[in-house]
Amino acid sequence: MDFAARRLRAAEALAATEADRLLVTPLVNVRWLTGFTGSNAVATLTTDGTAVLLTDGRYRDQAQAECPGVEVMVGRDLEGMAATTAADARWAVETHEMTVDTHRQFVAYLTQEPIASGRLIETLRVVKDVDEVELLRRACEISVAALMAIWEGPLVGRTEREVARDLERRMVDLGADGVAFDTICAAGENSAIPHHQPSDRELRRGDLLKIDFGALVAGYHADCTRTVVLGAAADWQREIHAAVLQAQSLGVSMLRTDVTPAEIDAAVRADLETGGWTEHFTTGLGHGVGLQIHEDPFFGPHQTGRLTDRTVVTMEPGIYLVGRGGVRIEDTVCVTPNGPEVLTPAPTNLLEIG
Amino acid sequence: MDFAARRLRAAEALAATEADRLLVTPLVNVRWLTGFTGSNAVATLTTDGTAVLLTDGRYRDQAQAECPGVEVMVGRDLEGMAATTAADARWAVETHEMTVDTHRQFVAYLTQEPIASGRLIETLRVVKDVDEVELLRRACEISVAALMAIWEGPLVGRTEREVARDLERRMVDLGADGVAFDTICAAGENSAIPHHQPSDRELRRGDLLKIDFGALVAGYHADCTRTVVLGAAADWQREIHAAVLQAQSLGVSMLRTDVTPAEIDAAVRADLETGGWTEHFTTGLGHGVGLQIHEDPFFGPHQTGRLTDRTVVTMEPGIYLVGRGGVRIEDTVCVTPNGPEVLTPAPTNLLEIG
Repeated sequence: MDFAARRLRAAEALAATEADRLLVTPLVNVRWLTGFTGSNAVATLTTDGTAVLLTDGRYRDQAQAECPGVEVMVGRDLEGMAATTAADARWAVETHEMTVDTHRQFVAYLTQEPIASGRLIETLRVVKDVDEVELLRRACEISVAALMAIWEGPLVGRTEREVARDLERRMVDLGADGVAFDTICAAGENSAIPHHQPSDRELRRGDLLKIDFGALVAGYHADCTRTVVLGAAADWQREIHAAVLQAQSLGVSMLRTDVTPAEIDAAVRADLETGGWTEHFTTGLGHGVGLQIHEDPFFGPHQTGRLTDRTVVTMEPGIYLVGRGGVRIEDTVCVTPNGPEVLTPAPTNLLEIG
Repeated sequence: MDFAARRLRAAEALAATEADRLLVTPLVNVRWLTGFTGSNAVATLTTDGTAVLLTDGRYRDQAQAECPGVEVMVGRDLEGMAATTAADARWAVETHEMTVDTHRQFVAYLTQEPIASGRLIETLRVVKDVDEVELLRRACEISVAALMAIWEGPLVGRTEREVARDLERRMVDLGADGVAFDTICAAGENSAIPHHQPSDRELRRGDLLKIDFGALVAGYHADCTRTVVLGAAADWQREIHAAVLQAQSLGVSMLRTDVTPAEIDAAVRADLETGGWTEHFTTGLGHGVGLQIHEDPFFGPHQTGRLTDRTVVTMEPGIYLVGRGGVRIEDTVCVTPNGPEVLTPAPTNLLEIG
């Protein structure tokens, strides 16, 4: 990872604001900017790309090892220490993440009121480095391999919870550091609950089985959903699966540079509406994924930023019929100059397995 | 869990402030107050104990199922919806957790400036319900059982990472929902790094092996550390282990009602200082544990609140000799009328295993 190059890009964005110093407070932004992976730190950045990492004594050695080219300061009141490095500066702070109390304490050290940085770092994080794409690809490969193993069965007769734990274990066996988020494994009527928690319900023949899951590799998150039928599919299951698959394929095909998330959102919804399904599509269409499982850009009617090369997002339409069952199909996709690269290439056709 | 009783306690605390409504924004506080376990919600509370849960459409059914006796509202701008339920009220908000931007948006809906609630909910969370202690006990039992299995070996020749993953898997096999935090497994010189991340370093004869880990059960976290020697212990290893064990035993013995964390902190540091070790004790002595791995009360020289029945905390002194090795011994302990109940009763004497 070329953290120095990231700091230069961030410094350039900072220079375009009224501020000359940036205080970075969310750990995930600190990590992106410096490489630091511990649980407590803030960072400062100046318009020439110089960064300081401030952490507590537990992390002194780790910070120095992980953050070459970054000065490390150790103490307890991290924001106060940061402020006193340049109390007269015009600071930008991440008011969308910083707490009211921390902001008040920080301001007390300064001679000028800080400005809001907005999502300066988050916006830069949208475009992944080549190294980041490689880690996402690896996390997705592990996820797909684990799912294929689970699909070999047996499935009928096991509980949602057992299948979820088995899938998670296989990801770790395949090299994941852990799971990217709490696995959703939802059978039958539970598949209609978008974010169902795995329960002791047994999987039965005739159930839709929806699994939403992903591996975590070196801080990077995979995100994939597939829905299959246990045994032979009923007509209504085929119908909603076909509608979701058509919408999802359309959405993936539109993940190209210079397209806006809003255009894709509108097109996918229009496609679902031809079957009258949009009222049953109650979740978001997709989101960026990287150091966080949900990050910029988010899909929705008001997203105006255009997709660029090496933006990694999910595409995940669904139809949820309350009390009956639901289907979601989700891929993690990297936008490239040659079009969308699906990082989670597990089969999307309707499998009847068991 | 008797959530209605918790809401009455919180309402009583709210009534003692200048506010008549509380906006609860950290998910863990929402969960404690209502039982809701999803990933997006806020809650409101009035001085008669009435609560409203506000979440998005994904969680409508789950919220209604998990939160009996609580009105559920569904939408996107959760804070805005909350404000409009009582725009003229005097609100208390959690400024230690609420972001600057959310606060600004919330205030825009109100006719009166909100006040800071302080750590109203966190303070109530310090004293656990009987049901919460039972879940913590279960999480700790699983943790200890998994550690004992790991100690049976083999250990020498495996990597830190392999041992950490094996331990985590055993906890899930024993019924954990997952891990309470990233497992620390640190061998030899790495044991001197308080928060070392498991690496590909192989465990060797003569190494100190420090493992800090815990199981997660129904949202409740276990936290336990043990340090052993692989093979025969050297004199310096025996010396620091004995010093830590003496300090840790003293600390545990003092975990009684009406004692303050500051008194315990001072006593344990004085004990370590008799051997000249305090300069090598660079971490905190302990913290509350429950729905969060680190929660109130925190041990330190300025903590004045007295321990009460069913407060659950860790006790974890350590000595870290940079470049050589370190020892930490940590238990999760419940304060009871009969004295400290150690929830993680794995052996603390210096084991020479392999």
